[in-house]
Amino acid sequence: MSEDIRAGEIAVTLPDTFDAGIYFIGRIRTPWTRREDCPKNARGSDAVCTIELEQRYAAALEGVATCTHLVLLYFMDRARRDLVVQAPRRSARQGTFALRSPVRPNPIAISVVRLVGVAGTTLSVVGLDCLDGTPLVDIKPYFASVDAVPDAVVGWSKAERAER
Amino acid sequence: MSEDIRAGEIAVTLPDTFDAGIYFIGRIRTPWTRREDCPKNARGSDAVCTIELEQRYAAALEGVATCTHLVLLYFMDRARRDLVVQAPRRSARQGTFALRSPVRPNPIAISVVRLVGVAGTTLSVVGLDCLDGTPLVDIKPYFASVDAVPDAVVGWSKAERAER
Repeated sequence: MSEDIRAGEIAVTLPDTFDAGIYFIGRIRTPWTRREDCPKNARGSDAVCTIELEQRYAAALEGVATCTHLVLLYFMDRARRDLVVQAPRRSARQGTFALRSPVRPNPIAISVVRLVGVAGTTLSVVGLDCLDGTPLVDIKPYFASVDAVPDAVVGWSKAERAER
Repeated sequence: MSEDIRAGEIAVTLPDTFDAGIYFIGRIRTPWTRREDCPKNARGSDAVCTIELEQRYAAALEGVATCTHLVLLYFMDRARRDLVVQAPRRSARQGTFALRSPVRPNPIAISVVRLVGVAGTTLSVVGLDCLDGTPLVDIKPYFASVDAVPDAVVGWSKAERAER
């Protein structure tokens, strides 16, 4: 990787070989073609984005239109994968697994999106913040019963955790 | 794949090559060694399960202990990948992307778990339903602000959707 490391960041040597392979099953179309134009997070934009699923998987959409929300998995293929500690510009130094940064050993992002419509192999959704052309990896129904934890917290102190 | 297809199920021919590779970054330890023993869903058990992260990624856990909940991504490496329509025993025939079944083109499962504790590279969590030994792919902080949609629905009719 040619990118520089910022002060405080730590890179590791990754394994020589991958353990499994994934297929790109489609592409995500968004209004954003440069990283700096992407919303800061997925709730930062009401833009309707488009999922173009490969025709091969068309039948797999049966029933998807009955979901109000979906979980999308996609591959952040421009991100380096070797940083275990990162120093984001806007926040404190953190371990990679405490961040949603695309920089991680497996740069698979997840986003919860609102489904606007399904037409053939094209899905219209709201709630994405990724670059135009991002490869799609999976579509899942969002089940509030297991996926929604409204009182979850990030940034607790040990004392706060103990009190809960 | 040797498994039979049930009536109504549809298999497709997958691409000849993968588009990207992933690393297994650790293993998930659960009480369940056979599929039929796994809970029906992640909220079906209060069992404390264990994540054994590879030592290589130890530093990436910095800050994770401040999260009450995490999203875990893991690889369902025993699942076939070519079914686009499935006929689960307990429910109606559905497209793969309307199901959370491990059977999908990219068998990457996600689970929202409650973090019980972190000790070195071992995490104790509640909320898993996978087999013992399942390969871990990623750990992410769960942000209620973008990940929690308590009123999401699966199984809506078109009329219900229009009314909303």
